[in-house]
Amino acid sequence: ALTEPQKTALKDSWKLLAGDGKTMMKSGALLFGLLFKSHPDTKKHFKHFDDATFATMDTGVGKAHGMAVFTGLGAFVSSIDDDACVNGLAKKLSRNHTARGITADDFKLLQGVFKTFLDEATGKKATNEHKAAWDALLTMLIKAHS
Amino acid sequence: ALTEPQKTALKDSWKLLAGDGKTMMKSGALLFGLLFKSHPDTKKHFKHFDDATFATMDTGVGKAHGMAVFTGLGAFVSSIDDDACVNGLAKKLSRNHTARGITADDFKLLQGVFKTFLDEATGKKATNEHKAAWDALLTMLIKAHS
Repeated sequence: ALTEPQKTALKDSWKLLAGDGKTMMKSGALLFGLLFKSHPDTKKHFKHFDDATFATMDTGVGKAHGMAVFTGLGAFVSSIDDDACVNGLAKKLSRNHTARGITADDFKLLQGVFKTFLDEATGKKATNEHKAAWDALLTMLIKAHS
Repeated sequence: ALTEPQKTALKDSWKLLAGDGKTMMKSGALLFGLLFKSHPDTKKHFKHFDDATFATMDTGVGKAHGMAVFTGLGAFVSSIDDDACVNGLAKKLSRNHTARGITADDFKLLQGVFKTFLDEATGKKATNEHKAAWDALLTMLIKAHS
């Protein structure tokens, strides 16, 4: 599980990343834009995305995906003080992605762009504590999926 | 799509239903407790639930499910003003449930207990406008899944 300071850093950064629907859609576009740019091969997993969605994420499909990912991450942040719930969510996340052929290695690619994402999404306001806390959460999700 | 007053009623009621993680877990336990009590047959869809989870929803698996459902509904509430995003989310919801053999008729069973859930979750503070707005959203999700 995460340390108390890490949990606080997650909740603290969450307001910058997902304060409302529009911000979540923007975060989704940024994060997956970075993933597709750095690792174009991951596009194969997104069967419902057309070219416009890959290019801008600013379509119904793209915005829905951003909302789903950031409300999903929000479930972890909102229940971060409840280890049993966090473990249940991590297992559920793993089951959903196994069903789509997405592996722990794919998760690691997302982890690899997450620090850059935090910089861009917060206009460089993300602190090293924020980055380390998100890295710890993503490592935990990857472990539950390995 | 929903009317403007319905969208406002959804956002207004959301604070009562899902203000923080604990409230979301409580709402999840209430909603699915009602579903299982009124329609025990629906239990067959929840392969990862053990007896304790069915009885109280107060296990890691149960709390994670409550969080997933209420953050999922939260995605609709947070993007309710963006029809393209709401449609994308409704299609995504439908795909995820089709993959688990859950039909529009099953959704209707949940819709059938939702007014009672709103009464219990808000200590009877839910207004008729709240109930009608949630009914309209659920009807839209059912239509996208039929």
